[in-house]
Amino acid sequence: MPERMLTEFEGYQLLESWGVPVPPHTLVSSAMEAREAAGRIGYPVVMKVISPQIVHKSDVGGVITGIETPGAAEEAFRTIMRNSAANAPEATITGIIVERQMPGGVEVLIGGKTDPTFGKVITFGLGGKLVELLKDVSIRVLPVGEDEIRSMIREIRGYSLIHGYRGEPPKDEDALVNLIAAMARKFVEIPEIREFDLNPVILYERGASVVDARIIVGEATGEEAPRRPGTALETPSDIFYPDSIAVIGASASPNKVGYSVLRNLLSFPGKLYPVNPSRTEIFGRKAYPSVKEIPGPVDWAVIAVPARIIPEVMEECGEKGVRLAIIVAAGFREIGDEGAALEERVTAIARRHGIRIVGPNCLGVMMPHMGINATFDPVSPRPGDVAFISQSGAIITTVVDWSLPSDFGFSTVISVGNQADLGFEHYLRFAEQDRMTRSITLYIEEILDGPGFMEIVREITPRKPVVAVKSGSSRKGQATASSHTGSLAGSYEVYIAAFRQAGVIPARSLREAFNLAELLASEGYPRGNRAIAVTSAGGFAVLASDYAEAYGVDMVEIPEEVLQELNAFLPPYWNHTNPMDILGDADATRFAALFDVLIRHQEFWDIAFVIAVPTTTVDPTHVANEIVRFSRNTSKMVVGCMLGGDSIKSGLRILRGARIPNFEELEDAFKAVGNILDGRMVRER
Amino acid sequence: MPERMLTEFEGYQLLESWGVPVPPHTLVSSAMEAREAAGRIGYPVVMKVISPQIVHKSDVGGVITGIETPGAAEEAFRTIMRNSAANAPEATITGIIVERQMPGGVEVLIGGKTDPTFGKVITFGLGGKLVELLKDVSIRVLPVGEDEIRSMIREIRGYSLIHGYRGEPPKDEDALVNLIAAMARKFVEIPEIREFDLNPVILYERGASVVDARIIVGEATGEEAPRRPGTALETPSDIFYPDSIAVIGASASPNKVGYSVLRNLLSFPGKLYPVNPSRTEIFGRKAYPSVKEIPGPVDWAVIAVPARIIPEVMEECGEKGVRLAIIVAAGFREIGDEGAALEERVTAIARRHGIRIVGPNCLGVMMPHMGINATFDPVSPRPGDVAFISQSGAIITTVVDWSLPSDFGFSTVISVGNQADLGFEHYLRFAEQDRMTRSITLYIEEILDGPGFMEIVREITPRKPVVAVKSGSSRKGQATASSHTGSLAGSYEVYIAAFRQAGVIPARSLREAFNLAELLASEGYPRGNRAIAVTSAGGFAVLASDYAEAYGVDMVEIPEEVLQELNAFLPPYWNHTNPMDILGDADATRFAALFDVLIRHQEFWDIAFVIAVPTTTVDPTHVANEIVRFSRNTSKMVVGCMLGGDSIKSGLRILRGARIPNFEELEDAFKAVGNILDGRMVRER
Repeated sequence: MPERMLTEFEGYQLLESWGVPVPPHTLVSSAMEAREAAGRIGYPVVMKVISPQIVHKSDVGGVITGIETPGAAEEAFRTIMRNSAANAPEATITGIIVERQMPGGVEVLIGGKTDPTFGKVITFGLGGKLVELLKDVSIRVLPVGEDEIRSMIREIRGYSLIHGYRGEPPKDEDALVNLIAAMARKFVEIPEIREFDLNPVILYERGASVVDARIIVGEATGEEAPRRPGTALETPSDIFYPDSIAVIGASASPNKVGYSVLRNLLSFPGKLYPVNPSRTEIFGRKAYPSVKEIPGPVDWAVIAVPARIIPEVMEECGEKGVRLAIIVAAGFREIGDEGAALEERVTAIARRHGIRIVGPNCLGVMMPHMGINATFDPVSPRPGDVAFISQSGAIITTVVDWSLPSDFGFSTVISVGNQADLGFEHYLRFAEQDRMTRSITLYIEEILDGPGFMEIVREITPRKPVVAVKSGSSRKGQATASSHTGSLAGSYEVYIAAFRQAGVIPARSLREAFNLAELLASEGYPRGNRAIAVTSAGGFAVLASDYAEAYGVDMVEIPEEVLQELNAFLPPYWNHTNPMDILGDADATRFAALFDVLIRHQEFWDIAFVIAVPTTTVDPTHVANEIVRFSRNTSKMVVGCMLGGDSIKSGLRILRGARIPNFEELEDAFKAVGNILDGRMVRER
Repeated sequence: MPERMLTEFEGYQLLESWGVPVPPHTLVSSAMEAREAAGRIGYPVVMKVISPQIVHKSDVGGVITGIETPGAAEEAFRTIMRNSAANAPEATITGIIVERQMPGGVEVLIGGKTDPTFGKVITFGLGGKLVELLKDVSIRVLPVGEDEIRSMIREIRGYSLIHGYRGEPPKDEDALVNLIAAMARKFVEIPEIREFDLNPVILYERGASVVDARIIVGEATGEEAPRRPGTALETPSDIFYPDSIAVIGASASPNKVGYSVLRNLLSFPGKLYPVNPSRTEIFGRKAYPSVKEIPGPVDWAVIAVPARIIPEVMEECGEKGVRLAIIVAAGFREIGDEGAALEERVTAIARRHGIRIVGPNCLGVMMPHMGINATFDPVSPRPGDVAFISQSGAIITTVVDWSLPSDFGFSTVISVGNQADLGFEHYLRFAEQDRMTRSITLYIEEILDGPGFMEIVREITPRKPVVAVKSGSSRKGQATASSHTGSLAGSYEVYIAAFRQAGVIPARSLREAFNLAELLASEGYPRGNRAIAVTSAGGFAVLASDYAEAYGVDMVEIPEEVLQELNAFLPPYWNHTNPMDILGDADATRFAALFDVLIRHQEFWDIAFVIAVPTTTVDPTHVANEIVRFSRNTSKMVVGCMLGGDSIKSGLRILRGARIPNFEELEDAFKAVGNILDGRMVRER
């Protein structure tokens, strides 16, 4: 059955059968019937031609509105028939629909489509003429509960039109919730419904009515919720903690990948076996001609040989009982059909032997706390709290290089490559269970199993925060991603909606992502939106206000009682408001005295931004120590904003050591906090 | 004359006299007159009560629309009179206006208000019910030419509604231009018009009509274009290049400001005179008891003594013939009336002696190329191309501290303080003439003379780009700025509009501002919007596409001919599109070969982003040198995006030495380029 659009009459019948309100309507086939129908329905009425072949009814003169009298109804029937015959002579006319012309109200739209990654999704937004201009829609992956529907209604900018705009009485939000819920339920239940677009739906003080419905039906393809076969999640997480690693293709020549991998793994405290048929020793370690010749068990094999001989190597690994193969070579699915076939062969061998695969076409895996750098990246990251799982090896190399002078550390870094076997879902599960990981950052070009991904992150995010950069937001970017990974990227907006729905915090850039990751891995997740800021620099107090407003952070008023305590020791010209400007001659002692007041009065704030700048009176070490003391003595979130260059480095190290986040650009601090508050509120709904 | 709102009838009469289209209308005082007027005007009509005391006519039942017959007109008159008497018994009823009910069309708004900083401004946007929701307005400071009016119409998001939305015929843009031009002209010409709001103005395929007018008149205050007395711009710019500097209040005790200032000035190659009545020598330099005792001429006096003795010191400076006094002390206007009086005294003394003042309440002035750091900042910046003029001393301290590890240099850094005498306008004029300055960055909390500022930057920006961070965008921020500088900040949106109108590029954060400043000080200002990007990292190619689209940078298609030349030497799996992914094994030689093709084909692009990441095959020094060669051999703009940490530092230094901008975060590169393209287009209009 090819896809086809239901006629308006069929659409109305279907919607009515689902309990979705549509205007009173009748299909007629003569002028007399039209007159009778209009009288029964009540004037004014609208009349429209119904024909499977006529999609744009207005274009053929097939729509007449504002029909007020029986004579006009008869006349309208004849006019529409004449116009249709003249302008669409080939079309079969099913009849003419006579429907009540509904009065005006707030116009919204409700749409449904099938996304290649996440399956069926529903959209809601302001409707009518301005849809394309406003681009004010919310999206949810189905199925969806009533709370979620209510939040999708409330998150559009135009919600004030529904809630009661400029003193108008509020519209019937409950009717809208019911209508969306009915559409969402039926869209999920009936696989043959491929797509629909109700626009406009008119919303009244009481009730709502669909007044235009495009519904596309087709054969159920069974692809609504794409699942990959054979990638079940039974991976034991202990395969990520190896006691022994073989490097297959280990080399002593510095321009070979197998050289870099082996050199990076020399710090691994477990058993390390170079495999190379033409050498007996590399870097002072005994080399083996084949993985099968290695005496003890081998947990991991890092495979650094060309793609074409990998099937053979995998067979050997299987015989040896290797549990995890990290295949760094390229030359698989990303290069076309031939590579895809090779990838399928390798995966089949692995499945037969029970080997799990990282890659192929990847950089490898780093686990700094275990001394593991199973990649060919020239540098190794510091140990830290953040797991980074990335679909681009070059982005890992760049991020790790950036992380070193920034003193940023990782619990694990995984390059997913082509995800022939293990994919984002498995690595997420591992990171969730890993004790060293406090927050997770993803760089995503494409997710293979959207519903599976959502299921896992929904479970993880209440315990460990997940931040994701999704590339491919542009149409050009989607084309580039396609040539890069050999696959079609799903729509960016659906990804972002799915992320939020599952509790993942989206970031637009890598810097933003790692700012968030650091904030999220830190002490004192904020329990509310009420912020205070303190600085010795008036200019930054003003900017702090600006950024707070821009990113939805609420700068609270200081209670009178607290003001009085502050006045007791601050100089008379301090600004007596929040953000607090405690003046340019403030030293660490003045900050400390202020912190003491804030510690005693924790009830009026949730987040404190401490903005310290280089001055002759401020010793950054001293201030940083006071910030640590402040943080230790409150259950609230303390965010460091020690701004400047080398002169604050000593302070930064103290803050990082105490897991207090610091931002070197003030805007980033408010952006990151605003972003997690947003995520938090999405989940609270 | 207190301010009052014209009645609708008065407003229509006034607009009509200016040639602004309003609906046909008549003022009537009986039901019979209403009936006659409606017949003359033509049905349908609207009737509204006219009374100086009734502002919200609908609220008292004083508006009836859709009147279709003579009988209905009579009835409407009686109903409105009855409602008004019942609901506003105190109001004097002037009469009832009968006006043609205008047909529907695109609803826009035109407004005018008097801004405390910039004087009269005009706003344009989508009108009607959705105004507050859309917040889609453009603003211009008056006077304004027809081209500028056309650009303000075209820059709103909703312009498509006017231009022809979803296949509708375009609306009468010329009529709209004329209407705005008439309002702008009259608003400037007639000082008594304080404010107006035409909303909605209905725009048709032919013509337009105002259908609701609020016009507020009042006494002309003469404050439309605030000018400061005594701050004429005749400052000779050579006063900024001193041969001799006295430090009044020079001190040998390290916790005194006079110590820091003197120590910072020790590198000044000209004559340096410590002044301190109780010392004969400081830092091995002879100290003088008073500035008057100094043997030779004194160009600058840096005054580091408490506020209360400054009048006396200024008298001595005047007698000595000092040309410029830098007053760092606080305790003036920013602390209230008493301080303001002291500031006025000091300024009067300076004016009498012809001394110009920097400050008071400022950090001072730095001119790295001349070895001058006349501030108490603990560190001194590197020499460079960017002039930084800031209304916050702490922001200077922070920026300078940040600039050192970032290898960022300044031509001059000026802390404006209270601007008692010299202000932004003078410093801008100096920076314009200064040979070492290639671009100018401002941090602004408040401009004292808006029109004067615009006049100067309009002259400067075609030759030297100006970037500005304006703080105080939030309502809270405006309150904080007020307590910080003792003055009321103007509306943020008007500032931004005035900036754009005068060619100043606005930035939201200091990082963004210095990214822009560096780009603008670099070689090869872009002549168009057509961009190409090249990288060895697929992930960054995708992100480059995303950011290009997000910031309005146009990624062009690669011409077939160029593609073929590239195919001749690139590996077969390169992505064959722009952004160009030349694959992870690319070395500097492959980049160089690509650059050669791009040099030969400069006709199809204006800006090239070169994205290099740390890999084993890429030597950053080598790549940077190739980027320099690339830039030298094109007349187009080349933007470096060498991403990573320490491993790219060597490359960065090479790029900076060749004045090629580099961005360490990819998003920043596209944001900055997008921002200057936006500014360029604003000016081209």
